[in-house]
Amino acid sequence: MRHPSDLVDILERQLGERGVLRAPADLARYVCDWAGDRLGMPLAVARPASTAEVAEVVRLCHAHGVRMVPQGGHTGLVAGALPDADGGELVISLERLNRIREIDPVNFTMTVDAGCVLDTVKQAAAEHDCDFPLSLGAQGSCQIGGNIATNAGGLNVLRHGMMRQLVLGLEVVLPDGRVWNGLHALHKDNRGYALAQLFLGSEGTLGIVTAAVLRLCPRPDQSRTALLGLPSVEAVVALYGLARRDCSDLLTAFELIPRRCIELAMEATPSLRDPMDAPSPWYVLMEVAATGPVDLGVMIERLLERGLERDLILDGVLAGNEAQAQQLWQFRESMLEGQRRRGEHLRTDISVPISAIPAFVEAASQAVMAASPRCEIIAYGHVGDGNLHFNILPPADMAEADKRPHLHDLEERVFTVLDDFGGSLSAEHGIGRTKQAAYLARLSPLERQLAGGIKALFDPRGLMNPGRILPPR
Amino acid sequence: MRHPSDLVDILERQLGERGVLRAPADLARYVCDWAGDRLGMPLAVARPASTAEVAEVVRLCHAHGVRMVPQGGHTGLVAGALPDADGGELVISLERLNRIREIDPVNFTMTVDAGCVLDTVKQAAAEHDCDFPLSLGAQGSCQIGGNIATNAGGLNVLRHGMMRQLVLGLEVVLPDGRVWNGLHALHKDNRGYALAQLFLGSEGTLGIVTAAVLRLCPRPDQSRTALLGLPSVEAVVALYGLARRDCSDLLTAFELIPRRCIELAMEATPSLRDPMDAPSPWYVLMEVAATGPVDLGVMIERLLERGLERDLILDGVLAGNEAQAQQLWQFRESMLEGQRRRGEHLRTDISVPISAIPAFVEAASQAVMAASPRCEIIAYGHVGDGNLHFNILPPADMAEADKRPHLHDLEERVFTVLDDFGGSLSAEHGIGRTKQAAYLARLSPLERQLAGGIKALFDPRGLMNPGRILPPR
Repeated sequence: MRHPSDLVDILERQLGERGVLRAPADLARYVCDWAGDRLGMPLAVARPASTAEVAEVVRLCHAHGVRMVPQGGHTGLVAGALPDADGGELVISLERLNRIREIDPVNFTMTVDAGCVLDTVKQAAAEHDCDFPLSLGAQGSCQIGGNIATNAGGLNVLRHGMMRQLVLGLEVVLPDGRVWNGLHALHKDNRGYALAQLFLGSEGTLGIVTAAVLRLCPRPDQSRTALLGLPSVEAVVALYGLARRDCSDLLTAFELIPRRCIELAMEATPSLRDPMDAPSPWYVLMEVAATGPVDLGVMIERLLERGLERDLILDGVLAGNEAQAQQLWQFRESMLEGQRRRGEHLRTDISVPISAIPAFVEAASQAVMAASPRCEIIAYGHVGDGNLHFNILPPADMAEADKRPHLHDLEERVFTVLDDFGGSLSAEHGIGRTKQAAYLARLSPLERQLAGGIKALFDPRGLMNPGRILPPR
Repeated sequence: MRHPSDLVDILERQLGERGVLRAPADLARYVCDWAGDRLGMPLAVARPASTAEVAEVVRLCHAHGVRMVPQGGHTGLVAGALPDADGGELVISLERLNRIREIDPVNFTMTVDAGCVLDTVKQAAAEHDCDFPLSLGAQGSCQIGGNIATNAGGLNVLRHGMMRQLVLGLEVVLPDGRVWNGLHALHKDNRGYALAQLFLGSEGTLGIVTAAVLRLCPRPDQSRTALLGLPSVEAVVALYGLARRDCSDLLTAFELIPRRCIELAMEATPSLRDPMDAPSPWYVLMEVAATGPVDLGVMIERLLERGLERDLILDGVLAGNEAQAQQLWQFRESMLEGQRRRGEHLRTDISVPISAIPAFVEAASQAVMAASPRCEIIAYGHVGDGNLHFNILPPADMAEADKRPHLHDLEERVFTVLDDFGGSLSAEHGIGRTKQAAYLARLSPLERQLAGGIKALFDPRGLMNPGRILPPR
């Protein structure tokens, strides 16, 4: 058995100085995610600059029995790409694989390296009058490879689907260093088992995605945004059904926002004014987008009329131009900042059937308030996906040391209610390490066996991002 | 080792008389597919009426070491669900699992048994003002379980995706009789590996799908259909890019039809008149559909104007009402009948990048005509999916016995050209047995190992639809 530090020396010779980082100061930005979470230091950080270099790094790790952590933009938030506390993992950062390989606007596809930042990909598509329709808060940092590994969702899923629906082909370095070339630019392809689908959402545990063929759509040339005040979550869900129909499925966003989030947004960004004369208990931030001769103004006005007639809407603001639309979106962004400023809090990322959202919010709120009457619940999310961030701020005067166990207890209560509604405890972010205990507690023996079998098939030595999704062997 | 015929006796006791067919006359309709292909007779046909009965049948087959063939509506056309020539396979027909279990129009989902016929599912959705947007020629016969097993495509993929995009959850009986309950009605769910995706397109080789949660969309309340004449395949592809933009992605169909197919349609249905004053070398049958306040007439007229201005369109017919639209669609249906009447011919089901369609059609036609100057090429298909049925009618006076080997030789020539374009030799129908040799010849050792490993993980004894996709062990 060779020594792991020998491996780092070999990597340095293979990849050059820019390709390997080992000084603690250089490692700092690879051990911490967006939320500030960290576990430990890696053996080193490898920064291969090509698929061949990724394959070489993986082959060497495999030969040395060294565990690997593929890493993108640090925005996954479930500790899936953070190096382990024991210091024995090699981080493989994809950041230098950042070429747009090809854009084919006639085929509505582009081929990109895994380390491309999502915003860069979106801009490159826009230059060809196309849109890559994945939209996330983290799009300025997150990388396509991470989006694939976690099957990313975001704001526009109701129209365009998750990452799973937006990927046509993949190139993957398997845990032993062999390269699978599945970079097909085909909209339809039914040859055998869906290997690419298996890598999507596998959180880097089956191999390292090095490139992908992405599906594009025409770039919208017009959009309209509205912020609406509603009396109840029931009204929000009813309005969603109406909006799907009245807006001819041109709906790109339909975000649920509670009153408390509007207040948090105004706290965080003092220039924001209360958007309507009177506060509403719930708000919806919605957007429609189109290309070609569709009058989105008429469309959205008719929806508002019909919503008012049916008492689904109390009041609303329709953005008259792009600047006003951005101001409305500012509420969505600032409310996250306002939440962050409140310090330690519980973030969840759950989904239920859309029809169950009102009853779930009611039941989960009751369960939480019964156990912790002075906490604050902030439930916002993507209505069209049944995806809620049912978050909890602990009482402001609670001792810091008590907050984490208290919130953990509340999380379990929320998950127990969720089980009754047939919900998912990870709608968007995946399992990583953070959700693992709750995930495994709900996994049937059959599912555990199949998941373990898939892992063992691709990674028999258990070296590729081990301990994420499933426990290490 | 117990004898297979013992198994049939046991099954008869378990499932009752309606549940097992063994008389040759009763088996006739289970051994032949839509195209008239057949291989051999099964041991018997089991017709379980519930998931529990399917599980019991599978458990017994597993215990007796008897091979199983799950069977839907016989419309797959790659011999994937036809019983083997050796008479040792038990057909498991899903036709009695035909309940619509639940429709949730607020969640835009429905839960159905695998044996439900696609048309029945579509009608049930329509009663709730929803649409299940999978549309196939075979929709009056094909079953949802078969659609899932083959990841079915069809006419509306460019708008709504393949079956893979339309399934949220599955219930599957595994090859040893255990039941996997993955019937989640969640639009977003990132818990671990994508098991459901693996079953989609696995052609019944990993287990038997018994139920599914399907994704619905609002039912369109208006549509417009046009048949356009175009000068070239290049013009067809250029018009497609224009149509995606001018029709705000409300395009539901964009079908390529060569002049020869219009003639075949008129031969098969004499009441059809040549649709325009002068023939065009190529036609496009297109449809847009919407809900809510969108003026599809204005939309499609502007597209026609812009297409005429740019010399992409030579002439066109816009249906003024539903009856006229159906008449235009009649060309699409009758051309298939006209093709069928010409007797033995080569059907392919291939895909290339959309941008490569013109060059591929040119190159493949040249390769075929060089080898067989008197055959007729009929290339039609779904432009938005890059999916062509590049079919070949042999010379009419060729001896019947010579046709099959001749067509097989031409198919290989077409596939060789396809390889140069990075295409797929099975866009929609899957591999089954018919495409297996060509598929395996192009599979890399790595892909072969992974596919074999997946099969072995789910079906270690190799009893579930063996010999389809991969060779039997």
